[in-house]
Amino acid sequence: MSLTKNPDLDLTISRIIKAPRSLVWSAWTDRESFEQWWMPAPAKCKVVEMDLRPGGAFTTQMSEKGGDFVPHLSGCFLDIVDGERLVFTNALLGGWRPAEQPFMTAIITLKDHPTGTEYAAHVMHKSNADRKMHEEMGFFDGWGTCIEQLARLAEKRAR
Amino acid sequence: MSLTKNPDLDLTISRIIKAPRSLVWSAWTDRESFEQWWMPAPAKCKVVEMDLRPGGAFTTQMSEKGGDFVPHLSGCFLDIVDGERLVFTNALLGGWRPAEQPFMTAIITLKDHPTGTEYAAHVMHKSNADRKMHEEMGFFDGWGTCIEQLARLAEKRAR
Repeated sequence: MSLTKNPDLDLTISRIIKAPRSLVWSAWTDRESFEQWWMPAPAKCKVVEMDLRPGGAFTTQMSEKGGDFVPHLSGCFLDIVDGERLVFTNALLGGWRPAEQPFMTAIITLKDHPTGTEYAAHVMHKSNADRKMHEEMGFFDGWGTCIEQLARLAEKRAR
Repeated sequence: MSLTKNPDLDLTISRIIKAPRSLVWSAWTDRESFEQWWMPAPAKCKVVEMDLRPGGAFTTQMSEKGGDFVPHLSGCFLDIVDGERLVFTNALLGGWRPAEQPFMTAIITLKDHPTGTEYAAHVMHKSNADRKMHEEMGFFDGWGTCIEQLARLAEKRAR
């Protein structure tokens, strides 16, 4: 299995979070915590399913400007290494069923760092066109804002 | 996680193989054995990659009427329970990257049976249209023939 990054197909983003890995992990895997950072504010996030095991459903909804919650991510977890790694895709739904609108697989990695945790997202696409589209949709701004929100939450808890 | 069968989206096929589970498992997971039954004869199969772990590549080629080997399956293993279950999809490639032509996920299950092994394939699609297309492409004949070939191989070894 190759998890090598392919710059033609992949997007990556990372940052140092000044909180221990356990706090970053729990901010990811606890539903209420996750809802606080997964969507750029003031948009709101609702976790519908977060079944943290291979084949487990991962479904979120979003609400913008106080509107109704609408589908956001419909995906499936592929791999969970406690405290270290989460892999999910929207190419499959819960139970590994092929999805109607496949687009990406994300590998989230948490590593110890002298000042806290190195948090990295490696997002894989099937084609350079999909990678470009994701970048033009505002990948760096969107994911960057969310990771910033995650950092603020974990860092507050670390104080 | 729900692995419930959905008759609108899924195709299933099963048969009893008169050989112990260990022999059916090795006929599946040993590349040379696998090549002997995975394609309806006289078509030939070549295993390019069979990395039996979650995220591992699963790539096969076929040759018809003595022609060159051409791509057949390009997929990814999702779950391996030794001796009991194999899950793979062509919605992802090795390393979980989204695939260009996603179509199905297959769950292969081996269970002990009084006369040998109950072998079952549960094949999931994203839509009823895909399920129908797979059926019209000759799912029952094709998979049935291959499972018959698998049975013959395992039963010969059980004698």
